[in-house]
Amino acid sequence: MSTAIMTDHRDTIVALATATGSGAIAIIRLSGPEAITIANKVFHGKDLTKQASHTIHFGTVRDGSEVLDEVLASVFVGPNSYTREDVVEISTHNSTYIISRVIQLLIRQGARAAKPGEFTLRAFLNGGMDLSQAEAVADLIASNSAASHQVAMQQMRGGFSNQLQQLREQLIQFASLIELELDFSEEDVEFANREQLKALLLEIGSVVRRLIASFEQGNVLKNGVPVVIAGKPNVGKSTLLNAFLNEERAIVSDIAGTTRDTIEDEINIGGVRFRFIDTAGIRDTKDVIEAQGVERTREKMRQARLIIYLADPQQDDISEIRSQQDEVAQLGVPFVTVINKTDLLRPAHIDELRTLGALFISAKNKVGVEELKGELLQKVNLHKLNTDDVLVSNVRHVEALQKTQESLEKVVHGIDNPITSDFLAMDIRQALHHLGEITGTVSTDDLLEHIFSKFCIGK
Amino acid sequence: MSTAIMTDHRDTIVALATATGSGAIAIIRLSGPEAITIANKVFHGKDLTKQASHTIHFGTVRDGSEVLDEVLASVFVGPNSYTREDVVEISTHNSTYIISRVIQLLIRQGARAAKPGEFTLRAFLNGGMDLSQAEAVADLIASNSAASHQVAMQQMRGGFSNQLQQLREQLIQFASLIELELDFSEEDVEFANREQLKALLLEIGSVVRRLIASFEQGNVLKNGVPVVIAGKPNVGKSTLLNAFLNEERAIVSDIAGTTRDTIEDEINIGGVRFRFIDTAGIRDTKDVIEAQGVERTREKMRQARLIIYLADPQQDDISEIRSQQDEVAQLGVPFVTVINKTDLLRPAHIDELRTLGALFISAKNKVGVEELKGELLQKVNLHKLNTDDVLVSNVRHVEALQKTQESLEKVVHGIDNPITSDFLAMDIRQALHHLGEITGTVSTDDLLEHIFSKFCIGK
Repeated sequence: MSTAIMTDHRDTIVALATATGSGAIAIIRLSGPEAITIANKVFHGKDLTKQASHTIHFGTVRDGSEVLDEVLASVFVGPNSYTREDVVEISTHNSTYIISRVIQLLIRQGARAAKPGEFTLRAFLNGGMDLSQAEAVADLIASNSAASHQVAMQQMRGGFSNQLQQLREQLIQFASLIELELDFSEEDVEFANREQLKALLLEIGSVVRRLIASFEQGNVLKNGVPVVIAGKPNVGKSTLLNAFLNEERAIVSDIAGTTRDTIEDEINIGGVRFRFIDTAGIRDTKDVIEAQGVERTREKMRQARLIIYLADPQQDDISEIRSQQDEVAQLGVPFVTVINKTDLLRPAHIDELRTLGALFISAKNKVGVEELKGELLQKVNLHKLNTDDVLVSNVRHVEALQKTQESLEKVVHGIDNPITSDFLAMDIRQALHHLGEITGTVSTDDLLEHIFSKFCIGK
Repeated sequence: MSTAIMTDHRDTIVALATATGSGAIAIIRLSGPEAITIANKVFHGKDLTKQASHTIHFGTVRDGSEVLDEVLASVFVGPNSYTREDVVEISTHNSTYIISRVIQLLIRQGARAAKPGEFTLRAFLNGGMDLSQAEAVADLIASNSAASHQVAMQQMRGGFSNQLQQLREQLIQFASLIELELDFSEEDVEFANREQLKALLLEIGSVVRRLIASFEQGNVLKNGVPVVIAGKPNVGKSTLLNAFLNEERAIVSDIAGTTRDTIEDEINIGGVRFRFIDTAGIRDTKDVIEAQGVERTREKMRQARLIIYLADPQQDDISEIRSQQDEVAQLGVPFVTVINKTDLLRPAHIDELRTLGALFISAKNKVGVEELKGELLQKVNLHKLNTDDVLVSNVRHVEALQKTQESLEKVVHGIDNPITSDFLAMDIRQALHHLGEITGTVSTDDLLEHIFSKFCIGK
């Protein structure tokens, strides 16, 4: 408990909990043993120290005789609060001037400016949530699609960590029994039934494998599906992207009171985000100087989860399109061939092109765009999610799960090819350690620092 | 009551009340007769319809079986709320996805998306505040200096409108008495004592005049002091501005958890904002083509409240500086002569320049900048404000006050040069009308639309 994030978690901390910018109200949050008494020093209207938990009080915040604002103060008495400590939330008018004055005043009265994620860190340290749940809070705030929201919500509400925690506890019992054997090592006894242990290890292993396997989908749902629109210059790549994006913008601006900060090259299809990766497109590779750029493009295409190969049959004949199709196919990434500018084609030409197994669109006239979206969603081949499906979406978790799996295999190997109890115990402890890293049962200051420093201040 | 803003003020309205962007929590606010029952349809955990006012409840918001978020719901039972209606504030995780889902869900359950300022409009319509107080809410949110904050806070807490309201009520009594005289017009009676009426008119007039006179300072404190830095090219105008601004930025970024959106060419001196107006500066007017630009610069300088005339004695000798000083003085705007780059001057040269009555600075080395700030604050010649000083800062108010003053003078003139009671009554009604416009006792839909449409949504 030596790093900065851990030194002073018994202080009372304060931060703005709402976003800055144009809005009606702002929430300043205090948490810690002195939260209520510090708030009470600046709040006029009622004695906050005498109020029941979960009550709201109208009054003024004053700096000496100067009224800084008319506010509402919400009192939460620990452990019935987010952080499990005493918490006061002061709702002020959303003026940067007022916010900074009130925060400065509270600091003068004994509070300390909170570090990023420090409220949630306290919730974790005080047993309000496990580590994977705490991490899910940040994911939930960042969620911007139905899918990423569902993954984060599932994780925040306990998700797989509950399940792992139970299996881990069973494994702890076996570890204890095996460690007991060490005390009797001269006598060659086995307190831990090796068959039962192996059955448990295989059960844990199957859960862990399933969770590792869910990461691919969990990651895609959390971070979006990377898509490359490939094609020669002037086939209509930007027009297609705009056809996707314009509609999205219209939908978003319909929602009362919310504006998205940026909707850059992302669309939401059936609740899943598709992120469009900018590339130079496929060009004529006869030009030697361009070959390097083409290689970079190929690399991006290989890393994509999906490729839209867009062709303009006014520009290329069917054999050229077919050869480009083959080129894309060689990358081994799922792709959709899309023929653009179909409004300009003769019927006979369209009939000829049908042999390509392509989708026909006019990006400019927004014809066929919906069908293309449906095709994209299908190509990504996501499993249909149930509300209670558990997906791992966090790189840290999947790494801990992989290490757990390796340790488990080592233990099983040690049972099948008998090794001494002390080595077996060590391997089990290793597996327990990695399992514990996920839920935070095992955590280091560095790990906590790493996780919580990525939070915003006020959370 | 026909325009859009007025038609449906008995609906239940919903909007995001906090800013969008990076932050931990968001507040979605519902107000209206169905606020609690609508919130209760989507909130799971407790029956919100059975909760006491000013209490907070933990639970989930669900769309069917899907959990959208874990939230806190604050219940306010009207008239003990901001709008005087039933209000529920739902505190969610600050994700644009969650916010839009929850708002859409509440709309499906019978709420309507709130228009800009509609919560505060309702507070006004339901008697929670008068019109000038409602306007002050917007000013308070926009306040970004000690001075603009104080002016808005004073106005929101009643300020001058209380005072005017009392005087207006006395005048209404006189108006009634004079209108009573009309019923007895044949009999030439005077129910209203003309001397008492005149004394009241003079008292109101003196208050109104004082308020009108306060507008200049109120406006400056609310909108900042417009300052022009004038001077030839390369005298160091940008360096001086940066010397001012850099320091400001450092101060602002010190405040935990708050960031100002933009600090463009504004500094805060002693709680007063100074806004720097960009100009081409004073140039050599011998160039005919440039003469037009120079005239535009002069115009901006005339409109400023303060001019910093910045000179570089390496570039111009003392007689040139003196002639430029004279030129600036002719504009009739308070100004400060500032000699820059003094670190490069010989002592003898400095002694010579002292006769200019100038301030000596080195903007680059930040020498003398603090003294210059003090000089600027002094030159603006603001009255020292007491906490309870009432200043008018709103153009609409000062216009209504000016019209009130004219009407009052007309009434006094009508008493001194007797006119019939019916004309006198009309003039008094006119004065009452203008006084009422300030507090909203007299208001039209157009006026309300105009005022509240400038609010942000959610306030």
